[in-house]
Amino acid sequence: MSENIEEMMRDLGRRARAAAARLAQSPAAARNRALTEAAAAIRADAATLAEANRQDVAAATAKGLTPALIDRLTLTPARIEAMAAGLETIAALPDPLGRVLADWTRPNGLRISRVAVPLGVIGIIYESRPNVTADAAALCLKSGNACILRGGSEAYHSARAIMAALARGIAAAGLPADAVAMVPTADRAAVGAMLRLSEFIDVIVPRGGKSLVARVVEESRIPLFQHLEGICHTYVDGGADLAMARDIVLNAKMRRTGVCGATETLLVDRACAATHLAPLVTALLEAGCAVRGDAATQAVDPRVAPASEEDWRTEYLDAVIAVKLVDGVTAAVEHINRYGSHHTEAIITHDAAAAETFLAGCDSAIVLWNASTQFADGGEFGMGAEIGISTGKMHARGPVGVEQLCTFKYVVRGAGQTRPG
Amino acid sequence: MSENIEEMMRDLGRRARAAAARLAQSPAAARNRALTEAAAAIRADAATLAEANRQDVAAATAKGLTPALIDRLTLTPARIEAMAAGLETIAALPDPLGRVLADWTRPNGLRISRVAVPLGVIGIIYESRPNVTADAAALCLKSGNACILRGGSEAYHSARAIMAALARGIAAAGLPADAVAMVPTADRAAVGAMLRLSEFIDVIVPRGGKSLVARVVEESRIPLFQHLEGICHTYVDGGADLAMARDIVLNAKMRRTGVCGATETLLVDRACAATHLAPLVTALLEAGCAVRGDAATQAVDPRVAPASEEDWRTEYLDAVIAVKLVDGVTAAVEHINRYGSHHTEAIITHDAAAAETFLAGCDSAIVLWNASTQFADGGEFGMGAEIGISTGKMHARGPVGVEQLCTFKYVVRGAGQTRPG
Repeated sequence: MSENIEEMMRDLGRRARAAAARLAQSPAAARNRALTEAAAAIRADAATLAEANRQDVAAATAKGLTPALIDRLTLTPARIEAMAAGLETIAALPDPLGRVLADWTRPNGLRISRVAVPLGVIGIIYESRPNVTADAAALCLKSGNACILRGGSEAYHSARAIMAALARGIAAAGLPADAVAMVPTADRAAVGAMLRLSEFIDVIVPRGGKSLVARVVEESRIPLFQHLEGICHTYVDGGADLAMARDIVLNAKMRRTGVCGATETLLVDRACAATHLAPLVTALLEAGCAVRGDAATQAVDPRVAPASEEDWRTEYLDAVIAVKLVDGVTAAVEHINRYGSHHTEAIITHDAAAAETFLAGCDSAIVLWNASTQFADGGEFGMGAEIGISTGKMHARGPVGVEQLCTFKYVVRGAGQTRPG
Repeated sequence: MSENIEEMMRDLGRRARAAAARLAQSPAAARNRALTEAAAAIRADAATLAEANRQDVAAATAKGLTPALIDRLTLTPARIEAMAAGLETIAALPDPLGRVLADWTRPNGLRISRVAVPLGVIGIIYESRPNVTADAAALCLKSGNACILRGGSEAYHSARAIMAALARGIAAAGLPADAVAMVPTADRAAVGAMLRLSEFIDVIVPRGGKSLVARVVEESRIPLFQHLEGICHTYVDGGADLAMARDIVLNAKMRRTGVCGATETLLVDRACAATHLAPLVTALLEAGCAVRGDAATQAVDPRVAPASEEDWRTEYLDAVIAVKLVDGVTAAVEHINRYGSHHTEAIITHDAAAAETFLAGCDSAIVLWNASTQFADGGEFGMGAEIGISTGKMHARGPVGVEQLCTFKYVVRGAGQTRPG
C-alpha cells in the first residue's frame, strides 16, 4: 500500500513537472483566461458546490468538530461568490513573469538580464478551509507554476467540486490539465511521500496550525515558505500619543484575534507607564480582552492575571494579551528578538530616533511605525492576494504573493565572446 | 564527547547570533575597514602564513594526498597577495545593506519600503582550499552577516593563520570578535551539529565536492545555497557560424576543465551536422580533449569513444566531452532539462527565434546566446566576488555575491492608521 502511494505521488510529481514546463511558456492571457473561466464555473456550479460542502459539514458535525472548525469549513453563498471574485482579482494582477528585474552590459559586450520565471512546481499542504483550494491554485497558475494541493480530509468533497471548476477554466484556456493537481487520497502517508518529492516539487507551502507546520518542517526534504507563528508585538514608546496608542493597540489586538498579524504582547515604555499603562490596560479589558501582565501591569487592575515566562512566547490567537513594562526602545527590541517569531512588530511614538532604532533593530519580516500590526497582509500591502506570510528569511519574507512565487534566470546575450585566461 | 561538541557548537551559534545583531547595525565604513585592515595583516604576516601552510602541505604530503589536492592546498606568495587583494576588492564594492529595493504608498497613506538587510548567520562548510576562508568571511562581513566556517582539516594551520589576520581587521574596526568564527575541531560530528543549529544559523553554504554537498543536503535542517554539479551544455544550432561555434566550444570545454561552468556535453543540430560536426570534434581532439559520442559522432573520427547513457549525466571536470546530435533547438532543450543540472547552458546560432526558444526553454540559472559557458562566474557578471553558484531556485540562483547574502524587511511608516473591518 505505502509503496503504491509513493509511486502514485511520484507519478503526480512527474505530471506536474511536465505541466510546469508548458505553463512557464504560456502567455499571460491564457493563464488569466483560466482564472476568469474558473470563476465563471464556480458561479455556475454554486449549487453543486454548496451540496458538496453540505456533505463535508454533515460529516464534520457527526464527527463532533468544534463550531469554529465547522464555521471555517462552511461555504455560504457569500463565501462562494468571494471565492469567484478572488480568482478574478488575481487574473487582473499584472503578469509577474518575464519582468526584467535588472539588466546591465559588461565591458566585454555581454548583455546580462535577470528575468522573472516561475519557481516550477509548488506543493501546498493545508487544513480544512475550502477557499484555500481556489486561492492557492489561482496564485500558482497566475505565476506560471504547477501546483499539487493536499487539503484537509474534512473538506474533501468541497475541494473536489472547486477542483472541477478550476479544471474547466484550465481546459477552456488550453492549458495542461496537470497544472493543478489534488492528492487523491486522505492517507497521511501521502504527505510524507510528497515531502520527499524533491525531484518534482520546488517549494512546499504549509498552511495551517502549529502541528501541521511542525510536521512539515521536520519531514520536508524540499525548501519551504515557512510560516511559523505570528507572535507580534506592539511597543508603546515614551514618545507615544496616548489616543493614537489606544486606537492602534485595540485594533492590533482585537480587530481579529485569530489572524497571524494580531498583536500578542504589548510592551510599554517605563517612561510613560504612569500616564499610558492604566488607560491602555483598561481599554483592553473593556473591549473584552483578558490581560496577563508583569507586576506593574497587575497593579493597574485586579482583573489582570500574572504573566509567566511562557506568556511572552505564546501566540494566543484569542482575546488575550500579555503586557510588560520595558526600559525604552532598546529593551523593547531585545524582548522582541528574544521572544518573538520574526513576523510583525509595531512601535507607537512621535520620537523619530526611537522609531528608527526600532525599525532597524527588530529582526522581523514587517516592522511598522504608528500603524497596526493587523496590516500584515498581502492584500493590505497591495499585492492583490497572498499564499501566506513567510517568517523565514530565504527568498520570500513577509506576504508571499505572485511575485514571490517567481524565481529568476540570468539571460546573457553575446556576439561570440569567449572567456580569457 | 559528542554532547560536548553539540554544546560547543551551540555556544558558537549563540555568539555568532549576538555578533550578527551588532553587524546588522554597523556602518559600511567599519565593515570595509575590517576588510582592508585584514588585507594589510595578511601582507604583514605573509611569512607566518607561509610557514603555517608549509605544515599543512607537509602533513598532506605525508598522508599521500594527490598532487592536485596538494596544489589546491598550497599558498604561494602570489596566492597570498591575491587573497589580500581579494579582501580589498570586496571592501570596494558598494554597500549591499540598506538598499531600498522597492517602495510605495498605499491609499490609506501607509508608506511601505522593502529594505535590504543581512541574512544573519551564515555557515560555510568547505574543503581544503585556504583562500576560501578569507573570501567567504569577507563576503559575509561585507554584507553584515556573521559567519561560522568549517574548513577541511588538511588546511587547519593555514586557516588559523588567515583567521588571525581577519581577527586583527575586525578588532581594528571595532566590530565584534565573534563576527567570524571557525569551528575549533576537526571532529566530523561538529558538521552534523552545525547542520542542526537552525536556531542560530540562517543559511548553510556547502562548497566542495559531490560527497560533501550530498552529505550537507541530506543532513541539513537549515536552508542551503545549494551548488550541485555543473553539467553545462553548449548547443550548436543549425544557424551557427562554424568559426564562432569552434571558438566558443573550445573555450567552454578547455579554458579550464575543473570549473563548474565548463561545458560537459556538446549538442549539435542534425541540420548542420554535415558541415559542423567533424570540424568541432576534430578541434576538440586536437586540443587534447577526449570525446565520447553517439553513433554519428563516432563515425567522424576513430578516436571518438562510444558515449553511454551515463555520459549525459556526468560532470567530468576534466578534458573529456560527451557529444550528441539532436533534432533542433526543441530537442536540445529537452535533453538539457532531462540530463542537466540547471546550472549554465549556451546556444550558438544566428537564428534569433531559435535562440529565444532556447533561452526561454532551458530551466537553468544561466542561459547564454553566442557566448562561452565559462562566463558562469560572479566576477564575470560584475558582482565583484561570489561565494558559489547556486543551482537551487530559492532566494539566490546563479552566482551568489554580496547582494544575494542579503534578505529584506518591510518597513511601514504610518500616522496612526488602524485596519478597518
